[in-house]
Amino acid sequence: MSKQKENPIDIDYTQRLKAAQILHQKFLEIIDQIKAGENPTLVLPKRTLSNTIFDVERGLLLLGPEKIKRRFLDVHEAKKFMQTMLMAKIIYEALINNEYPTIRDLYYRGKHTIVYYDLDGKKREENTWDEQKESDAVIRDIEVYTGLLREDMLILSKEKGKLVGKIILKSGNDIIDASKMGHGAYALEPTPDLIEIKDIDAEYVLVVEKDAVFQQLHRYRFWEKHRALLITSAGQPDRATRRFVRRLNEEWGLPVYILTDADPYGWYIYSVFKIGSITLSYESERLATPKAKFLGVSMTDVFGLKEGGKWIKKPYLSDSDRRNYVINAKPADIKRAKELLKYKWFQTEKWRREISIFLKERKKLEIEAIASKGIKFLADVYIPTKIQTQDWIE
Amino acid sequence: MSKQKENPIDIDYTQRLKAAQILHQKFLEIIDQIKAGENPTLVLPKRTLSNTIFDVERGLLLLGPEKIKRRFLDVHEAKKFMQTMLMAKIIYEALINNEYPTIRDLYYRGKHTIVYYDLDGKKREENTWDEQKESDAVIRDIEVYTGLLREDMLILSKEKGKLVGKIILKSGNDIIDASKMGHGAYALEPTPDLIEIKDIDAEYVLVVEKDAVFQQLHRYRFWEKHRALLITSAGQPDRATRRFVRRLNEEWGLPVYILTDADPYGWYIYSVFKIGSITLSYESERLATPKAKFLGVSMTDVFGLKEGGKWIKKPYLSDSDRRNYVINAKPADIKRAKELLKYKWFQTEKWRREISIFLKERKKLEIEAIASKGIKFLADVYIPTKIQTQDWIE
Repeated sequence: MSKQKENPIDIDYTQRLKAAQILHQKFLEIIDQIKAGENPTLVLPKRTLSNTIFDVERGLLLLGPEKIKRRFLDVHEAKKFMQTMLMAKIIYEALINNEYPTIRDLYYRGKHTIVYYDLDGKKREENTWDEQKESDAVIRDIEVYTGLLREDMLILSKEKGKLVGKIILKSGNDIIDASKMGHGAYALEPTPDLIEIKDIDAEYVLVVEKDAVFQQLHRYRFWEKHRALLITSAGQPDRATRRFVRRLNEEWGLPVYILTDADPYGWYIYSVFKIGSITLSYESERLATPKAKFLGVSMTDVFGLKEGGKWIKKPYLSDSDRRNYVINAKPADIKRAKELLKYKWFQTEKWRREISIFLKERKKLEIEAIASKGIKFLADVYIPTKIQTQDWIE
Repeated sequence: MSKQKENPIDIDYTQRLKAAQILHQKFLEIIDQIKAGENPTLVLPKRTLSNTIFDVERGLLLLGPEKIKRRFLDVHEAKKFMQTMLMAKIIYEALINNEYPTIRDLYYRGKHTIVYYDLDGKKREENTWDEQKESDAVIRDIEVYTGLLREDMLILSKEKGKLVGKIILKSGNDIIDASKMGHGAYALEPTPDLIEIKDIDAEYVLVVEKDAVFQQLHRYRFWEKHRALLITSAGQPDRATRRFVRRLNEEWGLPVYILTDADPYGWYIYSVFKIGSITLSYESERLATPKAKFLGVSMTDVFGLKEGGKWIKKPYLSDSDRRNYVINAKPADIKRAKELLKYKWFQTEKWRREISIFLKERKKLEIEAIASKGIKFLADVYIPTKIQTQDWIE
């Protein structure tokens, strides 16, 4: 046992065994069908928009109950069936050969031309796949078929998420203290479920869309002064960052606040953290954080809120700030905002108000405009006030 | 003294003082001109393509000797002059107020409308600047005028560079061991000159263009097996990553090998590391690594090299690999390759050969195609063989 602990890849090794066994078991079912003389058939959840449902209770985008059958002996499905078998074989081999492929690798590993002769003896050629989107779709099918996310199969990807704050992690065989990163940060790994979270001394998680704002807040030691874990997704969040944020919320009960630009792109980033994305709804179950809160920058932070001519909430920007900082919305922003209004999870009272102010004013604002009023204002006034007064949107 | 050492921001504090003094001194010169009744004039190096020279000896793109004069009492230059003064003031204030602005912040901080009355008593309005490209140009002017890079003035930016390997750094008040990052990595800080490199146990630096390939090599513990420092620029390298790589080469004498896709975009990434970029040639002096070597993937790795019908170098790809992995070059790739041929630093024998094979075959290849032959092949065969046989391009 002690020897195994010294092995630098033991957590990966355990994971490999687990994933390989599940793959093996799942595909044995196909062999059983063949042995029984049946038409080999894969039954898997249908990954389409029509079968994507918003579970209001859980606050998650999920795959619905519809299934598809993929049969080998069907001229329309044989290729897809074989693609699935080929990809499953490649992933299985990577698992048992201690490989760490990416989805791009897997595309290349499977890409070849099959030469065969048809019933008339004519030579024919067929590519396994031409574009990566074909092989990616097959990987998704394998994920939903086996219930294993790609990360569970040690498929790696680029990873942008960074972390600082009082949190102790075990990753691989190392213990990492994310409060001891100097002016740099801890770059998250692409397999966040293999991280062991050992201890946290923080009251909440602040996720900042923009890396440059993260750098400023970090340098100001925001996380220390305000007892926060500070994370950046560096734009649209990747899977690992989303999963890690979810784990902080679910396993450690930490509130999660998202800070983005005040525009439809920022709102969408928030909704990917909170609800999941439509194309990858099968992952929401593990990647989304339904309790995540949109801290700002909100339209009412920019314009304030009046009722009956009286301020209910004063804006954080003065008239002259606003004149200098707001940016005119582009037609694409307006279009996006109208689309977002159609989604159920943007149909709460506060979101309707937020989007309607945007559509009325046709203005947006970047976080940097708040930061330009001074890092002290951003770190010691804006963010803490928003949290203390619960001035967020859910 | 011991009290100062406990201050978590002392290295930043020292840097602030230094930068503020230089700014102060430089702009006192303007005040002296005013006191002497002269037309206030800034003399600064001309930042144009025509004044950008390639220093063959040093292997660097540098600003030439030409200067421009920017006079206050000149109707064509007054605005630019005032923009420079305004920006210098904002940067100076940020320095003495413990701020960490980004260039986006600085744009917002200075953005306002000046209302004035002309000689006829007519009310007029003038914006300090409208677009960030205007304020960015002013920041560059201040950099060349003062000899301070923006990082020296504690202007932060987003930062993509990551590092793993046996290197001990001091950043802020923390000691960081980049070999103890688990499956994650150390995300570099945006002010790499404030990093103290305390110890290194490695033979070379491998810079990988793609984060996903970095993840694979890291997970395979390439850096440990091959005694390397492993760095990714995650695409086009940012300033801090370039400066950090340069320091490893210059201060520690480590060879630097760059691994990119086999295409003009990859070659360009290499040339930014090695030579600098044309628009920011004033920075090359400190940011470029003239001794950096292009390790691959090279066209001869893909197609091999024959002379008189005999292999001088066999390709790393088999015929069938090549058939499956190479990608057709796009017209933009061809155009870019022809442009690169015009640059002096691409006019070495090996680069001419590389580019001519590309233009003949009109094919490119991604690093992932090499990785898809197995991480062991990439990590234990391809990279070490290339280094041992000195099969790189300079």
